[in-house]
Amino acid sequence: MPLKTPLTEVLDITHPIISAPMATVAGGALAAAVTAAGGLGLIGGGYGDRDWIERELRAAGNTRVGIGFITWRLADRPELLDLALEHAPAAVFLSFGDPAPFAARAKEAGVPVICQVQTLEHARSAARAGADIIVAQGTEAGGHGGARTAMTLVPAVVDAVAPMPVVAAGGISDGRGLAAALTLGAAGVLIGTRFFATSEALGHENTKARLVSAGGDDTVRTSVFDIVRELPWPAPYRIRAVRNRFFDRWSGAEDALRQEMAESADSPVDAFHAALRSGDTEESVVVGGQGLDLVGAVEPAGELVTRIVADAERTLAVAHALSG
Amino acid sequence: MPLKTPLTEVLDITHPIISAPMATVAGGALAAAVTAAGGLGLIGGGYGDRDWIERELRAAGNTRVGIGFITWRLADRPELLDLALEHAPAAVFLSFGDPAPFAARAKEAGVPVICQVQTLEHARSAARAGADIIVAQGTEAGGHGGARTAMTLVPAVVDAVAPMPVVAAGGISDGRGLAAALTLGAAGVLIGTRFFATSEALGHENTKARLVSAGGDDTVRTSVFDIVRELPWPAPYRIRAVRNRFFDRWSGAEDALRQEMAESADSPVDAFHAALRSGDTEESVVVGGQGLDLVGAVEPAGELVTRIVADAERTLAVAHALSG
Repeated sequence: MPLKTPLTEVLDITHPIISAPMATVAGGALAAAVTAAGGLGLIGGGYGDRDWIERELRAAGNTRVGIGFITWRLADRPELLDLALEHAPAAVFLSFGDPAPFAARAKEAGVPVICQVQTLEHARSAARAGADIIVAQGTEAGGHGGARTAMTLVPAVVDAVAPMPVVAAGGISDGRGLAAALTLGAAGVLIGTRFFATSEALGHENTKARLVSAGGDDTVRTSVFDIVRELPWPAPYRIRAVRNRFFDRWSGAEDALRQEMAESADSPVDAFHAALRSGDTEESVVVGGQGLDLVGAVEPAGELVTRIVADAERTLAVAHALSG
Repeated sequence: MPLKTPLTEVLDITHPIISAPMATVAGGALAAAVTAAGGLGLIGGGYGDRDWIERELRAAGNTRVGIGFITWRLADRPELLDLALEHAPAAVFLSFGDPAPFAARAKEAGVPVICQVQTLEHARSAARAGADIIVAQGTEAGGHGGARTAMTLVPAVVDAVAPMPVVAAGGISDGRGLAAALTLGAAGVLIGTRFFATSEALGHENTKARLVSAGGDDTVRTSVFDIVRELPWPAPYRIRAVRNRFFDRWSGAEDALRQEMAESADSPVDAFHAALRSGDTEESVVVGGQGLDLVGAVEPAGELVTRIVADAERTLAVAHALSG
């Protein structure tokens, strides 16, 4: 049965599930698979250039998908938003920075704007900036994020921006998570890590295997992976990833890492990128969230959408039956 | 209507709500009010000595209540567990340390053991130690805690220790939070911060007023309040409290705080305790969690229990009706 919410109405989708626009990971194949299963897939344009974005939009074929950007980075190359809007995406997703200028342009083009926020204050700003949908992202999420948790941020944002649809993000990996999000007042969920461990996601098979073997206790929030990738992420955003040898070597030694990058002929940057290419998960990065305990296998994304919805419906029926 | 779960069965209570044994805050009056409303109240024996614990057990009168301890501290004064067991408490609650020796003694006395955990690994240890109930505490909680969030820790612990009843803690402040906990697979909730802002809680009225005015974006996890209170909390536990002038002065300057405490005639320790007594919330500590956005008034604890249950039932009915 479809789960009807204000989110499914606004986006004209069957199920209230959006796949997160994970930069370098969420390409056209993943986004299309999520949309085909009744949710909405987002392409992760955050670190992409014109070629990457055009290629992944092509990979989605005729399937309706949206596209996500890292807002502070889009500010340096605003033409990528124009490129995206030319393809009439199902939605534009903005996170990590002031969405106001970009939200206005997307709205002029008639494209729904999804703003992801990490604090209640961000949510109020995003509502003023013209968001159509707000994603309240908890710190349990993989990738970049803040300090608030989904359990507390979601209901607070729902109260603050009502009646705007709010989507819960962070650690949601199964039907229980979707059911919990709906009871917190969210109109749906945005799922990242769980969709990274799918056959359609871009990324090395070793990375996906590590997502399956790791648990939520194994993740950390850190800057070391941004330093070595030479990505100037602004405070307070840091990345959640699986703890590995690279983290253990450089966490707490961030200045030494910067110095080694500046001075050593044998730069850690080259070694990191070589490890990423070869699938060495200990010397590169495995981006993932605290929901990893619930990730048990690499599966097709569409099957996940179907199962999460069915499990959420069963979960809500069981919980409802507790009273009375 | 009562919400029946394995927790209400095991503890023989009407509603699946436990009040957290907040040290110095959860006295007999609060615990008794929560029990009288159908939940289970716990007295916060963590920093208490024999006199404090006996006084607060007396304050609970003939109402059935439990008692909570800080495990690493109980290890230094194990006779306090004997004192508690002499009063045949409804449950003994243990958190922050190895529960094994104390759990065994409580079980010998026929008293149910509730173990609070902050990681999945802790949960497995607590189950082996003989816990009857496990509380999965998320980092959003006020007071001491870890890094995992309720949204991810609760379902992971439920899967790991099934069929043992698991209780969700961290940021739960209203009926939506209780409903979300139940859908995540929990058999109930443990609520702290929301019960601090009650007429029955011990604490200065200015502190309670600050809990009402502060929001979830205002809280931090830090060591500075433990350093100044000379409480040797082991890593990795730190306290979540409302950010204030004391925090701003000493956060990142923890070594300077220790030095000032050791060397200054005008010790920050005395000033801190004076501020605590006088209700100066900027120069003492206001312990609270990220759920503060949902704390709108100081209210009687029993009314809260009734409202949270009624709201959870309505929330579950609404969410269940989405499918169909």
